[in-house]
Amino acid sequence: MTRIGLYPGTFDPMHNGHLDIIGRAVKLVDKLVLGVAINQGKGPMFSLDERVEMVRAETEHLNSTAEIVVEPFEGLLMHFAREVGASVIVRGLRAVADFEFEFQMTAMNQQLDREIETVFLMADPRHQAIASKLVKEIAVLGGEVNRFVSPRIEARLKEKVAAR
Amino acid sequence: MTRIGLYPGTFDPMHNGHLDIIGRAVKLVDKLVLGVAINQGKGPMFSLDERVEMVRAETEHLNSTAEIVVEPFEGLLMHFAREVGASVIVRGLRAVADFEFEFQMTAMNQQLDREIETVFLMADPRHQAIASKLVKEIAVLGGEVNRFVSPRIEARLKEKVAAR
Amino acid sequence: MTRIGLYPGTFDPMHNGHLDIIGRAVKLVDKLVLGVAINQGKGPMFSLDERVEMVRAETEHLNSTAEIVVEPFEGLLMHFAREVGASVIVRGLRAVADFEFEFQMTAMNQQLDREIETVFLMADPRHQAIASKLVKEIAVLGGEVNRFVSPRIEARLKEKVAAR
Amino acid sequence: MTRIGLYPGTFDPMHNGHLDIIGRAVKLVDKLVLGVAINQGKGPMFSLDERVEMVRAETEHLNSTAEIVVEPFEGLLMHFAREVGASVIVRGLRAVADFEFEFQMTAMNQQLDREIETVFLMADPRHQAIASKLVKEIAVLGGEVNRFVSPRIEARLKEKVAAR
Amino acid sequence: MTRIGLYPGTFDPMHNGHLDIIGRAVKLVDKLVLGVAINQGKGPMFSLDERVEMVRAETEHLNSTAEIVVEPFEGLLMHFAREVGASVIVRGLRAVADFEFEFQMTAMNQQLDREIETVFLMADPRHQAIASKLVKEIAVLGGEVNRFVSPRIEARLKEKVAAR
Amino acid sequence: MTRIGLYPGTFDPMHNGHLDIIGRAVKLVDKLVLGVAINQGKGPMFSLDERVEMVRAETEHLNSTAEIVVEPFEGLLMHFAREVGASVIVRGLRAVADFEFEFQMTAMNQQLDREIETVFLMADPRHQAIASKLVKEIAVLGGEVNRFVSPRIEARLKEKVAAR
Repeated sequence: MTRIGLYPGTFDPMHNGHLDIIGRAVKLVDKLVLGVAINQGKGPMFSLDERVEMVRAETEHLNSTAEIVVEPFEGLLMHFAREVGASVIVRGLRAVADFEFEFQMTAMNQQLDREIETVFLMADPRHQAIASKLVKEIAVLGGEVNRFVSPRIEARLKEKVAAR
Repeated sequence: MTRIGLYPGTFDPMHNGHLDIIGRAVKLVDKLVLGVAINQGKGPMFSLDERVEMVRAETEHLNSTAEIVVEPFEGLLMHFAREVGASVIVRGLRAVADFEFEFQMTAMNQQLDREIETVFLMADPRHQAIASKLVKEIAVLGGEVNRFVSPRIEARLKEKVAAR
Repeated sequence: MTRIGLYPGTFDPMHNGHLDIIGRAVKLVDKLVLGVAINQGKGPMFSLDERVEMVRAETEHLNSTAEIVVEPFEGLLMHFAREVGASVIVRGLRAVADFEFEFQMTAMNQQLDREIETVFLMADPRHQAIASKLVKEIAVLGGEVNRFVSPRIEARLKEKVAAR
Repeated sequence: MTRIGLYPGTFDPMHNGHLDIIGRAVKLVDKLVLGVAINQGKGPMFSLDERVEMVRAETEHLNSTAEIVVEPFEGLLMHFAREVGASVIVRGLRAVADFEFEFQMTAMNQQLDREIETVFLMADPRHQAIASKLVKEIAVLGGEVNRFVSPRIEARLKEKVAAR
Repeated sequence: MTRIGLYPGTFDPMHNGHLDIIGRAVKLVDKLVLGVAINQGKGPMFSLDERVEMVRAETEHLNSTAEIVVEPFEGLLMHFAREVGASVIVRGLRAVADFEFEFQMTAMNQQLDREIETVFLMADPRHQAIASKLVKEIAVLGGEVNRFVSPRIEARLKEKVAAR
Repeated sequence: MTRIGLYPGTFDPMHNGHLDIIGRAVKLVDKLVLGVAINQGKGPMFSLDERVEMVRAETEHLNSTAEIVVEPFEGLLMHFAREVGASVIVRGLRAVADFEFEFQMTAMNQQLDREIETVFLMADPRHQAIASKLVKEIAVLGGEVNRFVSPRIEARLKEKVAAR
């Protein structure tokens, strides 16, 4: 049986904390779907196409025993999980605030579909504090983000900020 | 002496977690006022009139030793509590995030009016994770909300979503 | 109907945070039972008799609309609640650590007896940090505890410490 | 490749929350080792042999796609994980207090062995509040524990309490 | 060596909790810079000029061994800290939610500039619950804010609310 | 004026997280007292003399602008702070559980002596999860602790474990 995992996120932009979780999640499944959420609410800095393309570029050369595919999605997470055949949803845990929100969302998702499990992975402490929101803020205010994102993403952030 | 309690909320929409707390709160008081907040900030899905009417419909046949009345309010919670003669404000606790916010608000409310006590009730674990915000998100994205709200509210949510 | 509340604790010794919660709880009920737990596990500084007597001395002249009675108890809290006819158990909330433990205990207590509600009250911020354990530590190490306990309790603590 | 998971615990005694986590964990792996820790520190109610036997009795008829084996262990968790060939350690999350402790332990375990991942699963809200420690306390004080453990474990608890 | 501290904030408006932290921070440094953030995102009630002027008025007669200066800033906090020569950034801690956010921001700031330390001070419990956001809400809804802010700030809030 | 800080702890044994906090604290003061608590309650692995000597050995060659002195103490922390002339007590923050306990202790300490401030420093995320208790557990169970403590402390731990 092929075990399929789904790691959903906005990836606006993808940072080292995401890569850390992906590097852990591939050990748990045979195929890992990186689901890039449209996220109309949050007003992303990068378009959906840009984010999908960035996630692909960051992950296509990862040394992984699991197959990695990147797909955009809109709509309900649990519906998308069904669609891609995922039996496992992967979430990264950073801190208590995360945990509480995840608790609530996971408990409701369990009610929506009892066959799909959510597993939580803990990023390396060095990456736990990284948040896309703060990365963007630092970039917009002219700070260095090279400790938080890859050189490729850093360049993309600088372009975005310059174009504002 | 008639003991009057006030359970304030936006009820946008009312869900099973609210009903659980109400079922507990009626044991503490002789009269329970369900105060439906106008809540201009949050941009509610249902109008104030719709919410008042929904809360009434959901609670008018509750088997309760306490009288239940539903009233809209705007302005300061502590002023409304005075207005309806409440000596007790009832709040449901779900999780740590709730608790912190409640701690802050309650401590400030205590300073505003030392005669009115705030009591916290804990919903049944099955209902703790339910949040109006997530119920609306699931409904908007086409998911099933029948485990979180009554059939009546479910129908109202479907109408709202269809009308968008 | 007489509404009876139960405020359980070890009261080893009673401090200002306890008195704050009692001053709030008496507004919610017609009779408040202060249940002094035997607490063999924790190895109390004061004997059960001493604690019952101290709680009585501290509360007998409280100006309260509710009747206050002090009773020792051993065994299951929910059984004792039934025994004294309490429909409400009162707990003070101080901080997150408290909340988590209370959440767990309350959820299990709800399963044991669904007719008895637990309500949480929040102490005044000035009294939130007071813990019997720290009061005892300070007293044992020769510090002043007069900001945390009444003069009577302070004297009792000094006696205990001197007798060690 | 056979994916092996390890779910460690004291299981003193096993309760419905453990069974919930096991029912979820078996979906993630091909073989699940239930590691029963000796736990000299905590002073267990049941001997290691009794606990191993109880966990076996509770799980041997579980309908599961994964093989389940029960083994006692002493020493370092990460060494035992290596020994049984586990690539995944499974932990149940209940509340914030759990999470903090788990965060600390997992971060240190990651340093000890970077190839073994720890995943966290969230029990059904109905089982989240169950803790072996409280189950034992309730049993010792003569309360009913049938909502928290299986009939078999309930009987064992009663025997233990009667024999004290 | 002159030790310079930076206490950044929006101060919209300044309240008693801020004054409490300032009264503590001046003991740690020879000069304390109160950095008033432009904060375009949050949509402040008072303009940057008004806030700088209010912070100056509130602090110019403080009895302090350290020099206090008030300065507006925009851009990255760590850049501003460098600019004013601060070796210490001072933050007030109120509650867990604060702590988590601070943890994240501080960990990222440490990566940006390892020579500047962030220290956390704990406000007096009486002031811990005060939040500018709630102060404004209470003022807008016609409540009394005199327990949370100075008479001068109270008057300014009333003017603002009257002018809406 | 010479600014004196006090960093109290059990240091049983000293680990990299302690060294990280010390490296930060020396920037805040002119003299830093490392106060080694007797700690009869916790049953330390190393004697007070051993701990004082280990802390001295670990810190005597630190490159620091502040003078560092190591002193044992028993009795009340606030009394010892007075005794050594400290105006600042330094505490390391690791996680929420820490924060809650620190909140309580600091709030009570503030009542005992309002002139001495407590400041909190956040260790580097890589060191946040390290706890003396877990370091000892790992050493006792035969695990490698070289990522958590210095080679000198590691050797001492091995001696202790071998001697059991």
